[in-house]
Amino acid sequence: MTEPHCDPHPNPAGIKRVAVLTSGGDAPGMNAAIRAVVRTATSQGIEVIGVRRGFSGLHRGDFITLGPRDVANTLQRGGTILLSARSHTWRTPEGRARGARHLRAHDVDALIVIGGDGSFHGAHFLQEEHGIPVIGLPGTIDNDLYGTDHTIGYFTAVETALDAVDKLRDTGASHERIFVIEVMGRHAGHIALDVAVAGGAEEVFIPEDAKEVAGVLDIVRASVKKGKMGSIIIVAEGYPGGATGVAQAIQDGTGMETRVSILGHIQRGGSPVSSDRILASRLGEAAVYALMEGKSDVMVGRQNHETSFTPLADTWEKRKDVSRDLYRCAKTLSI
Amino acid sequence: MTEPHCDPHPNPAGIKRVAVLTSGGDAPGMNAAIRAVVRTATSQGIEVIGVRRGFSGLHRGDFITLGPRDVANTLQRGGTILLSARSHTWRTPEGRARGARHLRAHDVDALIVIGGDGSFHGAHFLQEEHGIPVIGLPGTIDNDLYGTDHTIGYFTAVETALDAVDKLRDTGASHERIFVIEVMGRHAGHIALDVAVAGGAEEVFIPEDAKEVAGVLDIVRASVKKGKMGSIIIVAEGYPGGATGVAQAIQDGTGMETRVSILGHIQRGGSPVSSDRILASRLGEAAVYALMEGKSDVMVGRQNHETSFTPLADTWEKRKDVSRDLYRCAKTLSI
Amino acid sequence: MTEPHCDPHPNPAGIKRVAVLTSGGDAPGMNAAIRAVVRTATSQGIEVIGVRRGFSGLHRGDFITLGPRDVANTLQRGGTILLSARSHTWRTPEGRARGARHLRAHDVDALIVIGGDGSFHGAHFLQEEHGIPVIGLPGTIDNDLYGTDHTIGYFTAVETALDAVDKLRDTGASHERIFVIEVMGRHAGHIALDVAVAGGAEEVFIPEDAKEVAGVLDIVRASVKKGKMGSIIIVAEGYPGGATGVAQAIQDGTGMETRVSILGHIQRGGSPVSSDRILASRLGEAAVYALMEGKSDVMVGRQNHETSFTPLADTWEKRKDVSRDLYRCAKTLSI
Amino acid sequence: MTEPHCDPHPNPAGIKRVAVLTSGGDAPGMNAAIRAVVRTATSQGIEVIGVRRGFSGLHRGDFITLGPRDVANTLQRGGTILLSARSHTWRTPEGRARGARHLRAHDVDALIVIGGDGSFHGAHFLQEEHGIPVIGLPGTIDNDLYGTDHTIGYFTAVETALDAVDKLRDTGASHERIFVIEVMGRHAGHIALDVAVAGGAEEVFIPEDAKEVAGVLDIVRASVKKGKMGSIIIVAEGYPGGATGVAQAIQDGTGMETRVSILGHIQRGGSPVSSDRILASRLGEAAVYALMEGKSDVMVGRQNHETSFTPLADTWEKRKDVSRDLYRCAKTLSI
Repeated sequence: MTEPHCDPHPNPAGIKRVAVLTSGGDAPGMNAAIRAVVRTATSQGIEVIGVRRGFSGLHRGDFITLGPRDVANTLQRGGTILLSARSHTWRTPEGRARGARHLRAHDVDALIVIGGDGSFHGAHFLQEEHGIPVIGLPGTIDNDLYGTDHTIGYFTAVETALDAVDKLRDTGASHERIFVIEVMGRHAGHIALDVAVAGGAEEVFIPEDAKEVAGVLDIVRASVKKGKMGSIIIVAEGYPGGATGVAQAIQDGTGMETRVSILGHIQRGGSPVSSDRILASRLGEAAVYALMEGKSDVMVGRQNHETSFTPLADTWEKRKDVSRDLYRCAKTLSI
Repeated sequence: MTEPHCDPHPNPAGIKRVAVLTSGGDAPGMNAAIRAVVRTATSQGIEVIGVRRGFSGLHRGDFITLGPRDVANTLQRGGTILLSARSHTWRTPEGRARGARHLRAHDVDALIVIGGDGSFHGAHFLQEEHGIPVIGLPGTIDNDLYGTDHTIGYFTAVETALDAVDKLRDTGASHERIFVIEVMGRHAGHIALDVAVAGGAEEVFIPEDAKEVAGVLDIVRASVKKGKMGSIIIVAEGYPGGATGVAQAIQDGTGMETRVSILGHIQRGGSPVSSDRILASRLGEAAVYALMEGKSDVMVGRQNHETSFTPLADTWEKRKDVSRDLYRCAKTLSI
Repeated sequence: MTEPHCDPHPNPAGIKRVAVLTSGGDAPGMNAAIRAVVRTATSQGIEVIGVRRGFSGLHRGDFITLGPRDVANTLQRGGTILLSARSHTWRTPEGRARGARHLRAHDVDALIVIGGDGSFHGAHFLQEEHGIPVIGLPGTIDNDLYGTDHTIGYFTAVETALDAVDKLRDTGASHERIFVIEVMGRHAGHIALDVAVAGGAEEVFIPEDAKEVAGVLDIVRASVKKGKMGSIIIVAEGYPGGATGVAQAIQDGTGMETRVSILGHIQRGGSPVSSDRILASRLGEAAVYALMEGKSDVMVGRQNHETSFTPLADTWEKRKDVSRDLYRCAKTLSI
Repeated sequence: MTEPHCDPHPNPAGIKRVAVLTSGGDAPGMNAAIRAVVRTATSQGIEVIGVRRGFSGLHRGDFITLGPRDVANTLQRGGTILLSARSHTWRTPEGRARGARHLRAHDVDALIVIGGDGSFHGAHFLQEEHGIPVIGLPGTIDNDLYGTDHTIGYFTAVETALDAVDKLRDTGASHERIFVIEVMGRHAGHIALDVAVAGGAEEVFIPEDAKEVAGVLDIVRASVKKGKMGSIIIVAEGYPGGATGVAQAIQDGTGMETRVSILGHIQRGGSPVSSDRILASRLGEAAVYALMEGKSDVMVGRQNHETSFTPLADTWEKRKDVSRDLYRCAKTLSI
């Protein structure tokens, strides 16, 4: 079938068939990334195999064929149509050898892995031990990946958390209560910081800053004195003690009543917002082109509005800091 | 000021000034009810006093004047502009006497209380001990009030919980996990049941039915066998053990991994959905007319699409059951 | 496979296989109704055939088999998985005879039609001319069907329109403009009236009331004088002249600048709200039971919280009025 | 009052009082920007005067004082609390002289203008003719401002349009129809392009590309042949002929039935999404600091995640192009 509106991309690597999988915690926009991989590949005459249940499925040869119509109407769906799972077998050389055999048996030339740094580690081993070209796509709501300004799923997770904060502010204001809200981010405060600024929080606690709760009790007290109707405190999951610890410290230190809300897994779901769909679409397209150009063992990201390639190893060895000026801004705006 | 489009309602009770307060947990639509009270009263030449912070504010004389423009742009806001609070002083005859004095000092002819049965109890005492006419408006997300088909805030709470369930289904399906989700409802399973049917849950546990988790393990196992991608179990807050207990019992009984999500206070907030705004508008209007007609010590509700009046005492003495046929329907549809 | 949690329903009609189709304009919740039909039938040992593209597909024998898993994850989807279409062939006896032959060839015992009164007319002919039992389910956003308090899709359409009104009020208030908003309702003002009350509109124009725009210019002028920031006027599609006509009349009569917004087809789409999903689930279940009990040529509806059955002919011969007291309430609350 | 958590920013310009206004079409996030200006200024001991109704209000001296509490609970509100309006008087030197006199009479040291290039033009004249320092903040949903990657309101407008497209796709797919949807963007295709990619559109028409509809009829025909259920075509308001013209050309050229949906002003309203709130917060803070540092006649923007300053004149003399690689990506992904 001719696709008149798609120019052929150079394919020195001679890619004819690629596999794609999603791994680790699911993130909104993963389907948009899969769709972009499938449609870009197809438009270049490349076939796509979907691997179900991440590396666990790769190990077991849980494969399906993916054509352009198979990904129709998935762009706006949360979750991942390829499913995701943790894999213990993948951690052994034998397990990975078995996965490589499955790929070869299906004439797969390269693998695209959508996930976080742990998943990229698994991909890296496949390349290193079996010479199969691999490309990583940053898919995790936490945004804690070096080598890309944002990760697929991040924008939606922030929006979902913000929606919850807006709702809690309604009831918090009506009862003049202090709400301590825990958002996702086991190792990073990106979500927490964005939500704090966008949600008008009085304070935010992130893993990247070891400040103690005791040090901010004055702010909480001042906030109440200033006549604020209800206060919002945001805590990243990875801050020692979490929301429960912070709430307890505030109650102990000020005698004020607090309410804890742990948003949890709702932050993973939902239809992806436009920014995640667009990022996923761009990266999925770029991943196919990168493989055709012979790139491997790198993550495709987007930095300063341009496609970028980062060695997979950097993603678990280097660290992306939160925006320090936004952190300062959060304080200024909470007066 | 003439209001040409409002016919005068008979006012044998000679009401010239009413007070209105919100009490207990806040519920989306309370502002719509306050607005309806203010605008209906004003259109009938009656003045309105807003009491801030519920009975606690009534006891302290925390009053403000409310005109039609003061409630502009509040219809779509969550929470309550009059604030809400628990009151300990109101439980004593002295406390109530003080509140009655404040009302008399401000020439208030009658009081409208928006809240639940506990709040109506407080209103009832005021009427009984001090002869001040009182009308109750059902404002609670739990829908557990005898004498009205629905309570103000209920529809929005169900919608918020359902939105969370839809999101959790995305991630649950991607990981083929069992999600056990706790929704509000300390004494009643109305929210849980609606969310279960609308959210396509496999099972629902409500306070009204003492079934044990052990009895439904077969259903959970069968659900997984049938190839369902992820399962949703809904638990009302008031079911013994809550979501945590149910999840533990499922894990113990089946060995399957479960995830618990407790939705919490987000169910109280947010812009009210249309059904809550309309119900609140209707009831606010009816409350003013009821006082003008000389009614007192009753709750204004809506039953079978008509305005109804229920003695306040009935609201804490009688009980509204969940819809039994919906409960049965939930089972049929989860196959 | 045994379904231990579903009691067998009496089946004197001996139904073994039913067909289901969606017809006319699609409405959010149609999928929930299809799902309920499929799951209820399956739980009773009855097979289900889905007819695609409404009567047009029935005429052409465009059939698919529907099992419980085929309707998984459809509860929350807008549109209809069975598609819908207008049919010209169905209007002739020959066309209907052909459809009946297709049904007989597939051993179909009865047909469930989800749609409006036009679609029910088509079903009625099938029953009358070919003796095939038919049941109608009210699926239309307009809510203009006699014999049921609400139709499937209505609640979602109101919510979508209300969300648009809330947004338009933001920009209207910022520019102190008069917005004239047209909502769906070719023959009925149900949506318009609900949206007007819930959206805090200054005025509402519905087909059921022949009042002239000239008569309400005073209200518009007064609204501006009272210091209102922006005004919202709601017009049902079926009011003569529509929003464009009303806006012109206001501009001509007052010299004030107006903006017109015609919401259009977005009101048909979107994930159904809980009320639509629950109504659809209940009615889908009831339709299967009704066929088993030998009922035919009736629409299953819900009135005063109970299942009701209305002769199909009544749905196009009788008329459901808008709520007159809500219409009055809309005026009172707009002061 | 001491604000212990805010470091003093250098103030060589000696700013003691600033004025802020919103001008042109309102955009979601304008309130967040006003709030950031007020709170940053206050934390630096600078007073803030709000000018109501844009330049029209400046001309008439329509001023209010803004303290930190006055902007509480505005972060999440659409529209602008300072109102906006077109001004004819501002176009004359006499009009501007009168505005300058009002500012001087209120001891205002500098003016912050939130709006688009037209508004910046007005600000530029004030600086040029009367030596009053001015800073521009990019507030317009169209994103068509040179000197900033994104404008305040853009992200929300895209999200609102995308939500509508998702809904229209539901109904479009059910009826297998072609929907031609017009989104805002009088001179620029930014919104259209983002919505097309995120909404999975078959085609997009933007003012920046003069391609003719006739040239893409093959794509539309091919889309239908490929078995796509419904097609979505996005048209920017500024594309010659708009959605109506495109729909007509498709109908004429292919004989296929199309439906037109013009989204209109709903794209301006609604609670701002997180990206707009954060951008507005950052820019509002930066604007105050910039004035303190003695900057003037520039727009504060954000480029590649850093604050940037662009001469106001550049905003109307230079042009920001749409993302060409996204435009190409849109085609690839629509196969």
